[in-house]
Amino acid sequence: SSSSKLLIKGGTVVNAHHQEVADVYVEDGIIVSVQPNINVGDGVKVIDATGKYVMPGGIDPHTHLDSDYVVTEGIDDFFSGQAGALAGGTTMHINFVIPVNGSLSAGFEAFAEKAKKSCMDYGFHMNVIKWDEDVEKEMEIMVKEKGVNSFKFFLAYKGRSMVNDEVLLKGLKKCKSLGALTMVHGENGDAIVEGQQMMIDLGITGPEGHALSRPPVLEGEATARAIRLAAFVNTPVYIVHVMSIDAMEEIAKAKQAGQRVIGEPIAAGLALDDSGIFDPDFTTAAKNVMSPPIRKSGHDKALQAALSTGVLQLVGTDHCSFNSTQKALGIDDFRKIPNGVNGIEERMHLVWDIMVVSGLITPSDYVRITSTECARIFNIYPRKGAILAGSDADIIILNPNASFEISAATHHTRSDTNVFEGKKGKGKIEVTIAGGKVVWEGGELKVVRGSGRCCSSLSSSLTCCRYSHAAAFAPSMKQ
Amino acid sequence: SSSSKLLIKGGTVVNAHHQEVADVYVEDGIIVSVQPNINVGDGVKVIDATGKYVMPGGIDPHTHLDSDYVVTEGIDDFFSGQAGALAGGTTMHINFVIPVNGSLSAGFEAFAEKAKKSCMDYGFHMNVIKWDEDVEKEMEIMVKEKGVNSFKFFLAYKGRSMVNDEVLLKGLKKCKSLGALTMVHGENGDAIVEGQQMMIDLGITGPEGHALSRPPVLEGEATARAIRLAAFVNTPVYIVHVMSIDAMEEIAKAKQAGQRVIGEPIAAGLALDDSGIFDPDFTTAAKNVMSPPIRKSGHDKALQAALSTGVLQLVGTDHCSFNSTQKALGIDDFRKIPNGVNGIEERMHLVWDIMVVSGLITPSDYVRITSTECARIFNIYPRKGAILAGSDADIIILNPNASFEISAATHHTRSDTNVFEGKKGKGKIEVTIAGGKVVWEGGELKVVRGSGRCCSSLSSSLTCCRYSHAAAFAPSMKQ
Amino acid sequence: SSSSKLLIKGGTVVNAHHQEVADVYVEDGIIVSVQPNINVGDGVKVIDATGKYVMPGGIDPHTHLDSDYVVTEGIDDFFSGQAGALAGGTTMHINFVIPVNGSLSAGFEAFAEKAKKSCMDYGFHMNVIKWDEDVEKEMEIMVKEKGVNSFKFFLAYKGRSMVNDEVLLKGLKKCKSLGALTMVHGENGDAIVEGQQMMIDLGITGPEGHALSRPPVLEGEATARAIRLAAFVNTPVYIVHVMSIDAMEEIAKAKQAGQRVIGEPIAAGLALDDSGIFDPDFTTAAKNVMSPPIRKSGHDKALQAALSTGVLQLVGTDHCSFNSTQKALGIDDFRKIPNGVNGIEERMHLVWDIMVVSGLITPSDYVRITSTECARIFNIYPRKGAILAGSDADIIILNPNASFEISAATHHTRSDTNVFEGKKGKGKIEVTIAGGKVVWEGGELKVVRGSGRCCSSLSSSLTCCRYSHAAAFAPSMKQ
Amino acid sequence: SSSSKLLIKGGTVVNAHHQEVADVYVEDGIIVSVQPNINVGDGVKVIDATGKYVMPGGIDPHTHLDSDYVVTEGIDDFFSGQAGALAGGTTMHINFVIPVNGSLSAGFEAFAEKAKKSCMDYGFHMNVIKWDEDVEKEMEIMVKEKGVNSFKFFLAYKGRSMVNDEVLLKGLKKCKSLGALTMVHGENGDAIVEGQQMMIDLGITGPEGHALSRPPVLEGEATARAIRLAAFVNTPVYIVHVMSIDAMEEIAKAKQAGQRVIGEPIAAGLALDDSGIFDPDFTTAAKNVMSPPIRKSGHDKALQAALSTGVLQLVGTDHCSFNSTQKALGIDDFRKIPNGVNGIEERMHLVWDIMVVSGLITPSDYVRITSTECARIFNIYPRKGAILAGSDADIIILNPNASFEISAATHHTRSDTNVFEGKKGKGKIEVTIAGGKVVWEGGELKVVRGSGRCCSSLSSSLTCCRYSHAAAFAPSMKQ
Ligand SMILES: [Zn+2]
Ligand SMILES: [Zn+2]
Ligand SMILES: [Zn+2]
Ligand SMILES: [Zn+2]
Ligand SMILES: [Zn+2]
Ligand SMILES: [Zn+2]
Ligand SMILES: [Zn+2]
Ligand SMILES: [Zn+2]
Repeated sequence: SSSSKLLIKGGTVVNAHHQEVADVYVEDGIIVSVQPNINVGDGVKVIDATGKYVMPGGIDPHTHLDSDYVVTEGIDDFFSGQAGALAGGTTMHINFVIPVNGSLSAGFEAFAEKAKKSCMDYGFHMNVIKWDEDVEKEMEIMVKEKGVNSFKFFLAYKGRSMVNDEVLLKGLKKCKSLGALTMVHGENGDAIVEGQQMMIDLGITGPEGHALSRPPVLEGEATARAIRLAAFVNTPVYIVHVMSIDAMEEIAKAKQAGQRVIGEPIAAGLALDDSGIFDPDFTTAAKNVMSPPIRKSGHDKALQAALSTGVLQLVGTDHCSFNSTQKALGIDDFRKIPNGVNGIEERMHLVWDIMVVSGLITPSDYVRITSTECARIFNIYPRKGAILAGSDADIIILNPNASFEISAATHHTRSDTNVFEGKKGKGKIEVTIAGGKVVWEGGELKVVRGSGRCCSSLSSSLTCCRYSHAAAFAPSMKQ
Repeated sequence: SSSSKLLIKGGTVVNAHHQEVADVYVEDGIIVSVQPNINVGDGVKVIDATGKYVMPGGIDPHTHLDSDYVVTEGIDDFFSGQAGALAGGTTMHINFVIPVNGSLSAGFEAFAEKAKKSCMDYGFHMNVIKWDEDVEKEMEIMVKEKGVNSFKFFLAYKGRSMVNDEVLLKGLKKCKSLGALTMVHGENGDAIVEGQQMMIDLGITGPEGHALSRPPVLEGEATARAIRLAAFVNTPVYIVHVMSIDAMEEIAKAKQAGQRVIGEPIAAGLALDDSGIFDPDFTTAAKNVMSPPIRKSGHDKALQAALSTGVLQLVGTDHCSFNSTQKALGIDDFRKIPNGVNGIEERMHLVWDIMVVSGLITPSDYVRITSTECARIFNIYPRKGAILAGSDADIIILNPNASFEISAATHHTRSDTNVFEGKKGKGKIEVTIAGGKVVWEGGELKVVRGSGRCCSSLSSSLTCCRYSHAAAFAPSMKQ
Repeated sequence: SSSSKLLIKGGTVVNAHHQEVADVYVEDGIIVSVQPNINVGDGVKVIDATGKYVMPGGIDPHTHLDSDYVVTEGIDDFFSGQAGALAGGTTMHINFVIPVNGSLSAGFEAFAEKAKKSCMDYGFHMNVIKWDEDVEKEMEIMVKEKGVNSFKFFLAYKGRSMVNDEVLLKGLKKCKSLGALTMVHGENGDAIVEGQQMMIDLGITGPEGHALSRPPVLEGEATARAIRLAAFVNTPVYIVHVMSIDAMEEIAKAKQAGQRVIGEPIAAGLALDDSGIFDPDFTTAAKNVMSPPIRKSGHDKALQAALSTGVLQLVGTDHCSFNSTQKALGIDDFRKIPNGVNGIEERMHLVWDIMVVSGLITPSDYVRITSTECARIFNIYPRKGAILAGSDADIIILNPNASFEISAATHHTRSDTNVFEGKKGKGKIEVTIAGGKVVWEGGELKVVRGSGRCCSSLSSSLTCCRYSHAAAFAPSMKQ
Repeated sequence: SSSSKLLIKGGTVVNAHHQEVADVYVEDGIIVSVQPNINVGDGVKVIDATGKYVMPGGIDPHTHLDSDYVVTEGIDDFFSGQAGALAGGTTMHINFVIPVNGSLSAGFEAFAEKAKKSCMDYGFHMNVIKWDEDVEKEMEIMVKEKGVNSFKFFLAYKGRSMVNDEVLLKGLKKCKSLGALTMVHGENGDAIVEGQQMMIDLGITGPEGHALSRPPVLEGEATARAIRLAAFVNTPVYIVHVMSIDAMEEIAKAKQAGQRVIGEPIAAGLALDDSGIFDPDFTTAAKNVMSPPIRKSGHDKALQAALSTGVLQLVGTDHCSFNSTQKALGIDDFRKIPNGVNGIEERMHLVWDIMVVSGLITPSDYVRITSTECARIFNIYPRKGAILAGSDADIIILNPNASFEISAATHHTRSDTNVFEGKKGKGKIEVTIAGGKVVWEGGELKVVRGSGRCCSSLSSSLTCCRYSHAAAFAPSMKQ
């Protein structure tokens, strides 16, 4: 894999818009040619992909590598998280930046520093957790100088990152004026505090209290609110981690009326239900704790259905992993359990199995929801998200006849648990190529610290997101 | 009409549950008997109601008599507003109490004092505009000692009466524990401030700016929020002045899922559209200014349809009248136009014409939505809201073959304008009897200051509302 | 109980519009007085109802006593079915008439004859299963001479009673012109035949094939079709046996738009799920076979929720009972299992337990959905459906502190099985009074063949249904 | 334009998945290369597209060239219709085949013959208007030997092409087994006959009677029915000419639940409202007559909104043009007015103006809904529907700064009227290239009879449609 020339022969090359049997030739990290029967000279590593799918590497739109969580830090840094990602067929991710002492710039610098150990390409979204003139100015700097064109607002986490409607409205307006995209974590934080207190008052302190204190109705409420305020401001909105029917239906309703709303389900929401968090074993239950909670059976199927028809558009993970010792901080009080699950390594396999093997979608659809749509939304298509001449050589080879099994014993990220423990399925990503290098092959991972690049810094064209440019849609102030 | 004995002969007596031809005999303010062919002796005033409908007097669930509005006061006090009400067939109303210096008790006393000039019976709802321990204690006093069992929260009017979600949640919980009913004004106040500024920035300062700055999506949002937070707390909620399809659909959706939500459209929302507020004449436009705004054509028909099938349940007015001089305070800035329209005098005629004459509902349905349902919700049925032996003698006689026409020139309330100016229709309330006295007959109004009673102080059974008692419905924390 | 004078003392008298503690005095089958502390002389049987609910006897809007089902006959005739009904607190039912050799009149005469053995009052709906001039004329005779004002059309049972859209449309128009009510069995019969063949082709011949061959989507489709064709003709429609979320949602949607649609869930749909029909024991599974099928868990809760808020309006049973020998006709082929379940005896107890004890509704609501609403729709209110002076003395006394248990071993109808076998709950109907006679008390049933009367023949005012009179609602041909 | 080598320089090349500034080089009817700065030798015609959009030629999925309509024939044959199409930027269409004497094969042969005069490429859908063994066998022949993979069923046109649910179900099953796509004209034909008679009875014989007799509720009904029967059979369904909110909402609802439904609005439905058909001038009104009718204002905006977010997927025309003499056949009876409007020439301009210029969608979205999606659904992508190396050279050049105006005086199809008469907008298709030849440039049309090819006969891979292959989605018989 040290060769800078690669030929992938005989596979079915799948793009979001088309699939065909073709060879793919790569030089110096770039795809040079995609066509049948490419002939190459010596010095070219040849990979036989006959009978296999050759697809763009996954792009995970929602990760929290190297992030603080109140009392502890997510266990995966950029290197360990990305190592797992590559072993699982994901070759790029977009990570959330946490402001430092209220400063977006300081936050960006801190994360840029953390990301130096990267072994694959990455981008950034910026969290906005308060509002003042400095924040406004820094948002402008982020977009114009740092290539960050997406800003997330939290309607939950009261007393920490939660913003009220006034701030969300100002954020939506500012994003609109910058051509940036507003992202929202949709849960009603005021009600959650009430719900948590109710649980404690009832003597429910275990992990199930986490799920019980923030039911789907609160996700539906906040999602509806974000969508309607975005309609009022007349700008697109991206709903992160759609976990419930309640939230999904709000997205569907808005789309039917012509509003530009992007809904992102995540691997855990598609693949799991709440049997984990109600498990009597604390370690098992605690590893399932994330927000919004993984819902009861039925929500998963509904999210899959909505994803299959385009009501939901792309799949993330919200990867924010902790080991069981960290999770145990909340042994006596579910409110202290660090929130987060893994997924960056597992997403590509799970989505293939749940969506493609089941017949819900085609391989082209799979490429769209795991890679291309993300690249389009965040303006890095077709450099990423496609197997086209000129694109980055971020490629996976999936054998549909092989199978996968997930376990903490074998995964490459750091936690001692895995929320998908024991999940098996059809389809195995046998080769991952990132930036033209074979980094995963034959079960062997070969990654280089520092080899990853920040996508947002590579191109001046990346300062605005595609969705916002298309946003001049129906007038907002409909009577 | 000084007689304390009355016989209404030969009319069609209409109750919410039934209509039949019968006589109604009244003594000392109470209905003694309802049956065909009642024979009485001398000294009984006999009113011939042949060919006419004999119905319970209207109860207006939503009025603001003698209320301050920021820079000025509503022009109708309890006497003038009630005089108009009686001339229009309404024999009871429930008025909102404004706290005084934050004190609910002081507010209650102030309004009890204002109400001493009453010429018909009345009740009170209490506004809650902030939250602390005192407020909590006073809510308890209101329910247990003052017979006030309904509390309104505003999601609009930022900087004045608006509460945030935390306060609304605490209010819902407190109401639940007291068996009281939570009422909500559903508009997003944060967004309205943005919308207003947007209008000013665009140079739109006229009354149309009022409508444009607070579109239906903001009413839909806040209504959805109130309903879902009520679902979370598992207690009923009453949405005042449902003005838009957006809000109505949220109510319909919640009802379909079994949630106990009460939706109150008002006369202006059912009978008017936004052509008034867009009128180039300032006086005409300004008299139409209320919140939420009267919507464009189509919303009115949809509200009528929903009312006809029980999706919406009872009709109010939000009567809060100003004269044209007061409205002119906002001649240069729509934000300064006092908000409010009339309706207490016109509601009964308008609803008959729009809903019954049009064939949308039966006379029994009319009694239900103008009187009985209000009496049931606020726990004064069957003392009010019915023509039954034992009920208060609050009675109207409507001639379906006569007609009405509305004009400021002829109405009995005080404003020099009328938002329904020129509206004509079939059906005329020819007689109003309140507390057993004929107060309106032959176009003549005979009312006595001080003759009205506060319903909530008359009965110890009135301390809790019926809807809250029935509230132990489906568990709130559905996953 | 041979006395013609009865005093029910000290109970809580519940009507749909009100409940109060009062005595009820009955003479010669008619309620004479309802008020507190009635004093009576000798010769009056006094029943102490202290601490109990005194309510109108149930009215079952949907029964098939003494009906043929293709290869066999329902096991309950008018006497046995009514005996069970009375033991279960139902004092009136409306039974479907099957035309004889295509003649409605002949069918009516046949059922009038069958009904002569009645021990309680009853009415008739008429099935319409084909269309020609004779049918049109006979519909007119039914309404004008026989007091039958409701006609049912089947969109299922292809090759037997199914009608196509042309006939349904003609039926809706004819009913509209007669002021009669159109009832519809909503399932797509063409698709069911396909579904059945599919099951047989797959080798699925057991009772579960019945459920699998006619999934909810087919009930949703036909219900939507009936509702929209009724909107087109601009006349009300009554959907019998709403069994699924799919059908319920169509009703909710139509109501939101102001259409007059009546939805009738049945006892089995509210109380059961499809675990019965999937039971491996044939007898158990077969007794659950009815159409539309009893749905999987979740549909029951949704129907209860919709019933609690008025989206659905009244509860029937579709009582059509067979014993296990008859059900065994389909031992080798589910298509031959006679369709039908019991319920006429169990409905009142089940609805009390499921809806009132659970807190979903109040006792007044219970009276409305089990009795009053049916009486109103079919124009027999307030003679039936109310505890009012002048009403028929059809009364039940329910002890909320006692309990019930259902079993074929103890029921009074004829089948050797009971679809609700083993169901227990709170609330026990201890006394049933029908036509002023105590027919059920202390677990003892005293009924007299021939004592029941046909309600439709008793009053000339019964020739048209209330709902159709109110039907001049929104214009049908909305663009 | 006789040159077989073409270079389009400097334009913005737009595909459904991406847009970029690039040159396009064409040889012998095929696109050879798409990249910036292509250098070519002599003998190459060079077209400067700087500042313009270079896009795939439009594909119209829904035309009726050379079709009989009961009493008369559509005025455009393959040559005249296609000439108009090319002048309007459409380079391929799929035309409906009418069976001859019940024979699909005979129908196919007849249309293959009619199409010999073609000047652009085309494909065929097959109408199925009755059901028997022969039809089943011929459907198989169509798919396996003729490359026809889509079959349309009519739920309207009673007595002519209407099928009942039994036939539709058999059709859905057969299509499923063949991997073909079922298309449906969704209107309830039984109700329409009733509606027409109602109009005649009311004395309404003018064109407005056409609209009034078939209101949106009948389109909603039949669309809901088709969708649910397709769900039952578990196969995709394509709804042609979605004209109303009612139908669109059914499609949205099904998609939200994961069902594979394709919704096709048409140019007239997006661009017009019912003011035309209510015009007092017969000629104007009659030219607007088509089925389903063009709806009142509001439906158009809702269809545009749904199209902008993917709820509806591609745009057709239902081009079936008549001249005013033919339309006058119904001067005394709207039922005799030939149904149909033009659109094949106007679609591309109208959709650009309504959807792109208005800001509802991007140019890439435009390519998708006018060309690519149609090519994908009917399995001719990427040969058609893309500007990719290897694709057919069907290309348009659109100048966003020029403008268009529509008039019968200037159009290229044959009718003496144009339903879009007087419509103006931004964006002008200045060049059309079909099969590598410049056929439209500088307002000059150069077309060759017989130069068009039948796409379905060119490739053995075209025997099944893409959508049906992806159809193995969620199990149909959901309980
Ligand atoms: Zn989050
Ligand atoms: Zn996150
Ligand atoms: Zn208000
Ligand atoms: Zn108010
Ligand atoms: Zn039935
Ligand atoms: Zn039945
Ligand atoms: Zn058609
Ligand atoms: Zn067509």
